[in-house]
Amino acid sequence: MHEVEQKLQALGLSWPTPPKPVASYVPCVRAGDLLVVSGQLPMKDGKLTCEGKVPSQVSIEQAKEAARLCALNGLSIVREQIGGDWSRLVRVVRLGVFVQCPDDFTQQPQVANGASDLLQQLLGEMGRHARAAVGSNALPLGAAVEVEMLVQVR
Amino acid sequence: MHEVEQKLQALGLSWPTPPKPVASYVPCVRAGDLLVVSGQLPMKDGKLTCEGKVPSQVSIEQAKEAARLCALNGLSIVREQIGGDWSRLVRVVRLGVFVQCPDDFTQQPQVANGASDLLQQLLGEMGRHARAAVGSNALPLGAAVEVEMLVQVR
Amino acid sequence: MHEVEQKLQALGLSWPTPPKPVASYVPCVRAGDLLVVSGQLPMKDGKLTCEGKVPSQVSIEQAKEAARLCALNGLSIVREQIGGDWSRLVRVVRLGVFVQCPDDFTQQPQVANGASDLLQQLLGEMGRHARAAVGSNALPLGAAVEVEMLVQVR
Repeated sequence: MHEVEQKLQALGLSWPTPPKPVASYVPCVRAGDLLVVSGQLPMKDGKLTCEGKVPSQVSIEQAKEAARLCALNGLSIVREQIGGDWSRLVRVVRLGVFVQCPDDFTQQPQVANGASDLLQQLLGEMGRHARAAVGSNALPLGAAVEVEMLVQVR
Repeated sequence: MHEVEQKLQALGLSWPTPPKPVASYVPCVRAGDLLVVSGQLPMKDGKLTCEGKVPSQVSIEQAKEAARLCALNGLSIVREQIGGDWSRLVRVVRLGVFVQCPDDFTQQPQVANGASDLLQQLLGEMGRHARAAVGSNALPLGAAVEVEMLVQVR
Repeated sequence: MHEVEQKLQALGLSWPTPPKPVASYVPCVRAGDLLVVSGQLPMKDGKLTCEGKVPSQVSIEQAKEAARLCALNGLSIVREQIGGDWSRLVRVVRLGVFVQCPDDFTQQPQVANGASDLLQQLLGEMGRHARAAVGSNALPLGAAVEVEMLVQVR
């Protein structure tokens, strides 16, 4: 079993079914050696798991967990695209993280770490990425977090 | 006439003059085979056609139409860049869609479909893209929607 | 001294120490000839220089200055990555600019020009980029502006 799969198990996680887009687009597109993954919501088994504003309706810890789930969903799409062959992953290049929050929230980076930390736990050096994390007043389906991902593959 | 031009006519549309940036930047930049198109607003003949928040000031249908116009504007920039030769378009890779909305709006994907659907109608398989759609409390000039585009060309 | 360094001096500026990420990610990632720089805040000597909403708490001029500082920080990361050899910079490809603002603000482009203008002053034709500028209700640490950067290098 590849190290990535072992680490996933060690974290007590398993691969979700790669989420289907909630509208007219595709889960990911490959252009050259770049794989652009669509914005992921904290969906599990087709249901949104974390809805509302951080930290007034959703705690920072819950939002970190949601960001982690977004990253897991995105990575499940990458995994499908590379046919489960992790040697084809060069690295995660960029995360874009949107956190639904009230106007005075300033801890978007802490929330986004839920996604970033998982990628580094699972992928090590390949999981280290550039990132932009910002607040948003409203997200699709009312999700607390949305994460998009850019990865390099071979 | 290329199929893309025929489809545009069949939709009762015509190419706008590729919009000029509203500030200190350029309409698009090519890097390798990637073409990065600047954020497009729903401008027509130099005037903003759709201003305000969705759905309180602008209906979802109006906002979809605005998103469609943003996509058409972006595609007109791509068309200029490839000298009108659609065989040089490999595919649309990514859309970033920002919807101006109140704090409780959750249907950003439906609005963004205005852009996504047009691209697929005009470009077929080449128009299928990855996407991130989010809400924003305020957009340039008060626009209801902003769409940025990443395409692959040859 | 390279022209870029001379222009920086002529503007009365100097390179900051490339900012360290405020959380679990890296300042930039290279994928092929693309360099993705993480979202930059208006930090100087490790301290946030411009906090609050534009224009209610921060003037447009102050916010432009903050955007300029974000761009300078991003460019300092690029400079480190290319070992100070500006002949390795092909061009700035894209800026993503987020402006913290109240719900009725519409002049995000003017604020973003603070970043765009600096890049063109320092880099000339190489500094001309595509851009998406949007509003945000809340940004990390309460920063007035966040700027992310995509550049092409050789």
